[in-house]
Amino acid sequence: MTIDGSKGADAQTRIRLGMVGGGQGAFIGAVHRIAARMDDAYELVAGALSSDPDRAKASGAQLGLDPRRSYADYAEMAKRERRLKDGIEAVSIVTPNHMHFPVARTFVKAGVHVICDKPLVTTSREARELARLVEKAGTIFAVTYNYSGYPMVRQAREMVASGDLGAIRVVQVEYSQDWLTESLEATGQKQAAWRTDPAKSGAGGAVGDIGTHAYQLACFVSGLTPSELCADLSSFGAGRVLDDNVHVLLRFEGGARGMLWASQVAPGNENALKLRVYGERGGLEWCQEEPNRLWYTPFGEPKRLITRGGSGSAPVAARVTRVPPGHPEGYLEGFANIYSEVARAIRARRTGAAADPDVTFPTITDGAAGVAFIEAAVTSSQRGGRWVGL
Amino acid sequence: MTIDGSKGADAQTRIRLGMVGGGQGAFIGAVHRIAARMDDAYELVAGALSSDPDRAKASGAQLGLDPRRSYADYAEMAKRERRLKDGIEAVSIVTPNHMHFPVARTFVKAGVHVICDKPLVTTSREARELARLVEKAGTIFAVTYNYSGYPMVRQAREMVASGDLGAIRVVQVEYSQDWLTESLEATGQKQAAWRTDPAKSGAGGAVGDIGTHAYQLACFVSGLTPSELCADLSSFGAGRVLDDNVHVLLRFEGGARGMLWASQVAPGNENALKLRVYGERGGLEWCQEEPNRLWYTPFGEPKRLITRGGSGSAPVAARVTRVPPGHPEGYLEGFANIYSEVARAIRARRTGAAADPDVTFPTITDGAAGVAFIEAAVTSSQRGGRWVGL
Amino acid sequence: MTIDGSKGADAQTRIRLGMVGGGQGAFIGAVHRIAARMDDAYELVAGALSSDPDRAKASGAQLGLDPRRSYADYAEMAKRERRLKDGIEAVSIVTPNHMHFPVARTFVKAGVHVICDKPLVTTSREARELARLVEKAGTIFAVTYNYSGYPMVRQAREMVASGDLGAIRVVQVEYSQDWLTESLEATGQKQAAWRTDPAKSGAGGAVGDIGTHAYQLACFVSGLTPSELCADLSSFGAGRVLDDNVHVLLRFEGGARGMLWASQVAPGNENALKLRVYGERGGLEWCQEEPNRLWYTPFGEPKRLITRGGSGSAPVAARVTRVPPGHPEGYLEGFANIYSEVARAIRARRTGAAADPDVTFPTITDGAAGVAFIEAAVTSSQRGGRWVGL
Amino acid sequence: MTIDGSKGADAQTRIRLGMVGGGQGAFIGAVHRIAARMDDAYELVAGALSSDPDRAKASGAQLGLDPRRSYADYAEMAKRERRLKDGIEAVSIVTPNHMHFPVARTFVKAGVHVICDKPLVTTSREARELARLVEKAGTIFAVTYNYSGYPMVRQAREMVASGDLGAIRVVQVEYSQDWLTESLEATGQKQAAWRTDPAKSGAGGAVGDIGTHAYQLACFVSGLTPSELCADLSSFGAGRVLDDNVHVLLRFEGGARGMLWASQVAPGNENALKLRVYGERGGLEWCQEEPNRLWYTPFGEPKRLITRGGSGSAPVAARVTRVPPGHPEGYLEGFANIYSEVARAIRARRTGAAADPDVTFPTITDGAAGVAFIEAAVTSSQRGGRWVGL
Repeated sequence: MTIDGSKGADAQTRIRLGMVGGGQGAFIGAVHRIAARMDDAYELVAGALSSDPDRAKASGAQLGLDPRRSYADYAEMAKRERRLKDGIEAVSIVTPNHMHFPVARTFVKAGVHVICDKPLVTTSREARELARLVEKAGTIFAVTYNYSGYPMVRQAREMVASGDLGAIRVVQVEYSQDWLTESLEATGQKQAAWRTDPAKSGAGGAVGDIGTHAYQLACFVSGLTPSELCADLSSFGAGRVLDDNVHVLLRFEGGARGMLWASQVAPGNENALKLRVYGERGGLEWCQEEPNRLWYTPFGEPKRLITRGGSGSAPVAARVTRVPPGHPEGYLEGFANIYSEVARAIRARRTGAAADPDVTFPTITDGAAGVAFIEAAVTSSQRGGRWVGL
Repeated sequence: MTIDGSKGADAQTRIRLGMVGGGQGAFIGAVHRIAARMDDAYELVAGALSSDPDRAKASGAQLGLDPRRSYADYAEMAKRERRLKDGIEAVSIVTPNHMHFPVARTFVKAGVHVICDKPLVTTSREARELARLVEKAGTIFAVTYNYSGYPMVRQAREMVASGDLGAIRVVQVEYSQDWLTESLEATGQKQAAWRTDPAKSGAGGAVGDIGTHAYQLACFVSGLTPSELCADLSSFGAGRVLDDNVHVLLRFEGGARGMLWASQVAPGNENALKLRVYGERGGLEWCQEEPNRLWYTPFGEPKRLITRGGSGSAPVAARVTRVPPGHPEGYLEGFANIYSEVARAIRARRTGAAADPDVTFPTITDGAAGVAFIEAAVTSSQRGGRWVGL
Repeated sequence: MTIDGSKGADAQTRIRLGMVGGGQGAFIGAVHRIAARMDDAYELVAGALSSDPDRAKASGAQLGLDPRRSYADYAEMAKRERRLKDGIEAVSIVTPNHMHFPVARTFVKAGVHVICDKPLVTTSREARELARLVEKAGTIFAVTYNYSGYPMVRQAREMVASGDLGAIRVVQVEYSQDWLTESLEATGQKQAAWRTDPAKSGAGGAVGDIGTHAYQLACFVSGLTPSELCADLSSFGAGRVLDDNVHVLLRFEGGARGMLWASQVAPGNENALKLRVYGERGGLEWCQEEPNRLWYTPFGEPKRLITRGGSGSAPVAARVTRVPPGHPEGYLEGFANIYSEVARAIRARRTGAAADPDVTFPTITDGAAGVAFIEAAVTSSQRGGRWVGL
Repeated sequence: MTIDGSKGADAQTRIRLGMVGGGQGAFIGAVHRIAARMDDAYELVAGALSSDPDRAKASGAQLGLDPRRSYADYAEMAKRERRLKDGIEAVSIVTPNHMHFPVARTFVKAGVHVICDKPLVTTSREARELARLVEKAGTIFAVTYNYSGYPMVRQAREMVASGDLGAIRVVQVEYSQDWLTESLEATGQKQAAWRTDPAKSGAGGAVGDIGTHAYQLACFVSGLTPSELCADLSSFGAGRVLDDNVHVLLRFEGGARGMLWASQVAPGNENALKLRVYGERGGLEWCQEEPNRLWYTPFGEPKRLITRGGSGSAPVAARVTRVPPGHPEGYLEGFANIYSEVARAIRARRTGAAADPDVTFPTITDGAAGVAFIEAAVTSSQRGGRWVGL
C-alpha cells in the first residue's frame, strides 16, 4: 500500500500547481483537480480557468483561489507567476484541444512543467514544434493518457515485457461509448459542442477523443510499434461533421496484427475501453469499467483472474495502489497515479536527484504519437480505406 | 415450451436419415447425431461413415446401424437407398470441406434432402453449380450454420427486424478460439490436420472454419447486406499455410459499418463467438458461451438482460426452446433446433402442406454467401488489404 | 469426448424404458425423455403417462408409443410388462411427489430398475420401507438429483475429495427462483398447483422442491455429513400453505458450518442454484446457470476458472461431457448424464459384469437423506427455529 | 455531477480536522485522510496519530502537520485545540475499537464534531453513555459505515423506500474475505493482531469487523427493523479466540426474513460485501466489488442494470457522484461521500442554517445498533444458536 506515500517527508512542500481551462461547466478540469489532490502532492494556487473573464473569475472564487492569482488570460498568468517567488512550478492544461498548443508553448517557454490533456495538439506540425521546445527547455511534459495509470494496466505491460505471453501476435482494442448516439451537440450541451466541432477538436472526432486513448493503451501494454493502418471513419449522428465511429486495422513491426474500434454511437456502452493482447504463450484481457481485474490466460492452463493488490499482482502495480484488494479503485485513482508519478519526477528535479527509473507517465513523445495516429486514420479514411504508414 | 413438440402426432414416422462422414475419430458427426435425436424427429438408418471402408464398417456397428445399410462409399449409399422402400429421406453431410460438393451433388440428384455442414463447398463455382441442382431437384437443402439455431439469436434477429434498434449503424462480430495456438496439426491430431490443409479445407483456414460462422451470424441478425470488405489474414502457427487469424472491415448497403475478427490463436478463448449490433435507438449483445442471455440496450434506458424463456422473450425464441428460463440450453440444443426446423419443412413436403413461414434455417443461399465471403477475404488479403466487393 | 460413448458396442440393445407420469401438461417428464434419448441408451416403449385415462392415451399416442403399451394405470403396466418377453427393464417415475412411493414400491417389487424424480417420497417412514424393498429386490434405484450430473459438479466433488481445498470449513448453498412470487397456483397453473399443495407435495414446499436439491448438492460436493440444522421457513405468497422461502443453518460432523437458502419468491432469479465450498487451503464456486464454469480459488493465488473440457478439467468430468470447451452443455445434458450413468449400471447387471466404480448417480440412500432433510427443516421451523438433529 | 461541489462558495473555510490514530502502519487512518481530502472540504491540522509518542511524532511529520499540533496524547490534543482560535472543528477517530469510547467521549465533551470508525464502541453500555453525551453536547457524530456512502447503495435505498419493490420479504446479505484463512495474527501482522484480540476488538471478531457492516447495509437499504436473530459463530483459524465465520438468521418486524454471512476465512473472497433484497414486486442486488452497478429486477420483466450516473439513476445517487457513468468510482469515493455529507452538516451548523434533509450519513444511533447486533450475535451463539431479541 502506498497510501500517502507520494507525499513523503517533504509534505510541507507540495508542488505549486496552476490550471488553464477547467472553469464552471467543464468536465475534465475537475477530474484533474481531484487527481492532483488525491495523494496530497500538489496545491492548486493559480488559474486561468476560462477564456471568458467573468467565468474565470467566478470559477477561481469557487475554488478558493487567491483572487490575485485567478487570471483572465493564460499568457498573463504565465508572465505574472514567473515573477512570483512562489509562482507555479507546474500547470495543468485542460482546455479544448485547439488551445493545447498555444498554452503549452507559452508555459514550456516559461520553464513551467506541463501536464496536458490529450490529444497533445491538433497537427503533427504543432507536435514537432512543441517537442522541440520541451527539449530545449528541459522541463517535464506529461500527457494525461490517464488509462495507463491504472495499476492493472501497468501489471499487464509488465507481464508482456517480461515475456509471460511470448511474442505478441494479436492486439484487439476498443473504446465504445453511446453519449453521441443522438445529436447532443444540437442541444447546446457544452462537452458535445466542442468535441464535434473541427475548429476546436481538430480533424478527428471520436478518433481523437477516445480512439487515441485506445491506441496509446494498446501500444503502452503491448510494447509494439505500429507500422501502418487502414481506417474507415464514419459520422452517423445527424448533421455531424467529425467521425463518431472508427474502425481501424493495424499492422505492427515484427508482424503482429491489431484491430481498433472506437465509437460514440454504440448504445449501452458507457466508457467501455477494453484491451486484449495475445501472444504465443498466453493472453491478457482488461476492461476499464472493471479496472481492478486483469485476466491472464496462459495457454493450456485455466484462466486466472489477477486482482489489484491481490495474489499475483506485481510490485509495478502495488506502487500505484492505495487500498487492499476487493476495495475497488477507479477512474479518479488511475488518473491520480499519473499526477503522482509526475510529482515524483518534479521532486527529483527539485533536488537534482537522478530520475527514478520506475516513474512512468505518458510524455510528449506519446502525445505526438497520438497526433500521428489521428492524422493517419483520417488520411486513410479519406482515401477510401487505403493503408497508410505511421 | 415445445418439449417433444417437433414430434407431434406423426411420431411413428420419424424422418429416415443417412449420414456421410462422422465415423470414429470425427467430431461434428456425433454432434449432428445428437442434434437429430434431441427432439425425436429423425431416425438414423444408414451411413457411409468414413472414406476408410474398415472404419466405416466399425463405426456403423458401433452406432447400431443395420450392417446392410452401413456403406463403404457414399455413391453406393445413394444408389442403394434409392431403391429401398424405406430408404433415407434426408442425409447429413459431415465430411471435411472438400467432399461437401461431390457428396451433396450426388444426393441432391438422388432427390434426397440434404443437411450439410459449413462451409457449403470450397469455391463459388461449386456453390453456383450446387444451387442450380437444388433448384432443379426441388429438395430441401440446409447448411448447419448452427449458431443461428440459438433461441436468443432468433430473438435478436426478430428485435432488429421489428425496429427495436432503429436503423443499424455498426456491427461488431468476433469468433475467437485458442486451440491452434501451437502447431497442433504437427502432432497428427485429426481435426487440426484437415482444417489446416488447403487440399481439404479450401483456400480459407480460420476464415472458413469459424469466420464464416461469424459472418453468417452478423448477417442473420442484422438483416444487412454486405457490399464490400477489406481483410488482413495472418498465419501465426509455425509452418501453417492457411490463415489462423482474420481481421476484416465490412461495409454494408445503406451505410452501416462492421468489423469481424476470427482467430484460432487467441489463448484463453474457447469458442468465443460474440455479436454486437448497434442502431439509432439501441443495441444488442450476444455471446455464444452464455447463449441463454441477450443484452438489450435501448438508448437512454438501463441495460436489460433478456433470458431464454424469460420475461421479454418473444414467441420466435419460445418455439425453439425446451426448458424454462434458468435451466440452460446449450450448443447441442441450438444445433438441434436447425434439425427440428428442417424436420418441420420435410414433413410439410411429405404431406404437401404449405411451408410454415416461421420455419427458419440456413439454406444453400446462405451457404453460397459464406463461400463468397471466404473468397473475398482471401482475395482482399492477397492484394495487401484492398477493398473487395461482395 | 464421450459422444455416443454410452451406446458402445451393444447399441442394438437399448434399455427398454417405461414411464409413469409425464403426460400432456407436465414438465419434468419431457425432460426425462430427452435425457434418456440424448446418448441413445434407452428406448421408451411403455407408459402410464397420466392418472387421467384419456390424457394417458392421448399422451402415449403423441409420443408414438405402441397403443397396447400405453396404459391407463401404473399397476396394470407393471403387471403386463412383466409378462412380456421384451417388457421394460427400467421405469422413470415423474409423477407429483405423493405418488412416488406407491409407484416405486410396485415396480421395485416387480424387479424393475427405477429412476425416480425427487423428492424420493413424502415421509421418512416411506423412505425406510422403500429402501428395504430395494435391498430385497436387488434392483437399481436412482433418484434424479440431476444437478449432480453436471461435469463441473463432479469436478468439484473430485477436487474436494482429493484434498485440493484442505479440510472443509464452510459450505454456502442457495437455490433461488421467482416463479411463485405471485400466487400462480390461484390461476390454475398445473405446476404451481400441485407443488403448493401439501396433499401432493408433502410437508415441504420450496424446501422439498428445490431445497432438497441444494442440500444434496452441498453434501455431494463437500463430502460432509450434516449433523443438525436450524430452519426458518416462511410462506409469503397470499394464501399459500407450504413454505416458499427457506433459511437453514447447518452444522456438519467435524465442525464445518453451512447455510442453505431456497426461495421461490426472489424476483430476478430463474433457477439460481449456487454452491460455494471453502476449506483450509482453497475454495470452489459453481452456479447452475453457468454450469460449464467452476471457480477454483487456491488461497494465496489468483482465482482460476476451470471450464468443462478445458485445461485443468479432470477425467471425472470428461467422462460425462460430449462437446469441447466453449460449446456450452446445459441442463438437459446434465440430466442426461444421470441417465447415462444408470444405463452403465444396468448394462453391467445385464452381463453380470462387476459394477464400474466410476459410475456415479444419486441412489435411494441419497433420496432418503433428502426426505430426512425436509422433515428436519419442517420440524425445526415448526418449533420456532430450534436446532434439530439429522 | 457534483465535482468540487461540496466546496462551494466558502472554499476558503475548509473544516479544520484532527485525527486520533492512523499513524504509520495503520490502514484505515490513511483512508480517512484521502476521503477527507477528496472533495476539498477538510484540512487536516492536528493529530494524535499513535499511542506510541515517537510514532505519533514521526507520523505527524510525514503528514506535514505543524509539530505543535502533532500530539502524543489524544486528551492533550482535545485540551489544547480547544484553546486555539483556529482549533479543530471535527475529529476522526481511527484507533482500534477499544479506544473509540474514551476518545469519542473526550472530544464530544469538548464540543468537537466526531467522525468515528466502526464499530462505535465495544459494549452497549458504552454506546448508551456516549449517545447521552452526544445529545447533551449537540454535536454531530458520524460513524463510518462507509458502504452506505456508495451512490448505488443510496439508489437502492431510495428505490425500496419509494415502493419499487413492494413490501420487502427477504434480505440476503453477506460479507466474505479470506485474509484470515491462515493465522496471520501469529506472524505479527498488525491489522490481524488487534482485530483478533478481544482486548482490542471487543467480544466480536468477524462479526464486529465486517458483520456489522453487512448488518448496517441491510438495514440501511431495506429500511426494515430487525427484531430477533439466531447466530452460529465459529473460529476456524488455529488458536484464534474470536469468531472468523458468522452465520446469522434474521427476523424483521413485519415478517420479513433475512440471512447474514460474514467470513474472513473464505478463500477467493477479497472484500465481497453483497446485498440482495426481495419484495413482492421486485428485487435488487448490489455487490461492493462492482459498486457502480445495481441490478433491479422488477417481477415479470427483464433484469435491468442501473449504473452510477447512467439512465435510471436517481438524484439521490447523483448528488454523491463525481464522474460520468462508465468511469468507475470506488471505495475511496464512497468513503469520501460520508465525509462530504458530514461536511455539509457541519457547515450548516456553522451558519446556523437548517439542516439539509437530503444529507445522509450513519449517526451514533446506527453505531449503537451495530453494537447491539454484535452483542446479540455473540450471545445467541454462546447459547448454542438460540434466538435472541434485538
